[in-house]
Amino acid sequence: MQISILGAGNVGLALAGALLRAGEPVTIGVPEPARHADAVAALGPQARLTTSDDAVARGELVILAVPYAAALSIAQARADWQGRVLVDATNPLAPGLAGLSLGTTTSGAEEVAARAAGARVVKAFNTTGAENLADSRYAQGRPMMPVAGDDAAARQQVLALAARLGFDAVDMGPLSAARYLEPLAMVWIHLAFRQGQGRRFAFARMTRG
Amino acid sequence: MQISILGAGNVGLALAGALLRAGEPVTIGVPEPARHADAVAALGPQARLTTSDDAVARGELVILAVPYAAALSIAQARADWQGRVLVDATNPLAPGLAGLSLGTTTSGAEEVAARAAGARVVKAFNTTGAENLADSRYAQGRPMMPVAGDDAAARQQVLALAARLGFDAVDMGPLSAARYLEPLAMVWIHLAFRQGQGRRFAFARMTRG
Repeated sequence: MQISILGAGNVGLALAGALLRAGEPVTIGVPEPARHADAVAALGPQARLTTSDDAVARGELVILAVPYAAALSIAQARADWQGRVLVDATNPLAPGLAGLSLGTTTSGAEEVAARAAGARVVKAFNTTGAENLADSRYAQGRPMMPVAGDDAAARQQVLALAARLGFDAVDMGPLSAARYLEPLAMVWIHLAFRQGQGRRFAFARMTRG
Repeated sequence: MQISILGAGNVGLALAGALLRAGEPVTIGVPEPARHADAVAALGPQARLTTSDDAVARGELVILAVPYAAALSIAQARADWQGRVLVDATNPLAPGLAGLSLGTTTSGAEEVAARAAGARVVKAFNTTGAENLADSRYAQGRPMMPVAGDDAAARQQVLALAARLGFDAVDMGPLSAARYLEPLAMVWIHLAFRQGQGRRFAFARMTRG
């Protein structure tokens, strides 16, 4: 399979390096190949550097590793992608990593907070199934439990509570982070029910030194 | 700390059981306590069953373990929550677990697909940092890599590719699941940058038999 990567930023180069180590030659396409000659040469002889158009032409599987706005332009620039697999590795990030620029407009937690006068609302215990809430033990480690809230003291109380229940309590900061935690719950729900994986799994955070 | 749980469904009872095992007495509040007497009695003598109003009155920390619509009503029903910590464990689920009923309207991947005529768009490689894309090895296990796309064959190709790169490739089904995968990316980005945890972590899926 001919794999092309559009973009030679940190995501594109990271994927290219990993693919090459897995034995997949890659073609990297950028608007101005000369600017990226050194970085691509460092990947070794199995990495080909060319223009974006040429990389698309050669690729059976094309990975978009460019900023989101560029991904939209690239997607629209061709009249027909002719059945190519187009892997979207982008995220519609707002400037300053402030959030997603589309698709997330509010959260249940913020709606609750807007109605709960005088409450210090904290989002927690929403991202995993009831079996995991009842019993957090996994042989591989502790399930993660993200906690978000605007009141720091309240958030710390709930983080401590989650830790007492055996979770890897993860401080997400402001309540608006519930915009990402409710979709994280949907990842779990979607896998458990719509993808038929059942309920005996949990998400964890792994770290390396 | 006096902990009250509103709701005696599977989430409420799961949390109550776990809290009791951790040595925290709990008060469970429901609209009709008599209907839940057996389930709460089964939790043991440290579980108190009462009305929702009484549970709120007693609780310093109140956990909403009810359907989302009920959470909104409960939040609004009190003129002043008097500084209580209100833990929102709900999710604004659409009927049939079809998705979130608010806050997720589209995704970058769907916008790309709308523009990429003739392409078989797959969402992947967007949910973790470039370091993890470059090198997926963790002592604790394999990082997960969720993959979403409407074309089954294309999705399988990308799942296989993710597995070759050392990931736990997770089949998310349709491209619309990118509505949850882009926020999942934001969980990573938010922790790495806004919460200052750095980039040396990854999410994993743990299972139990």
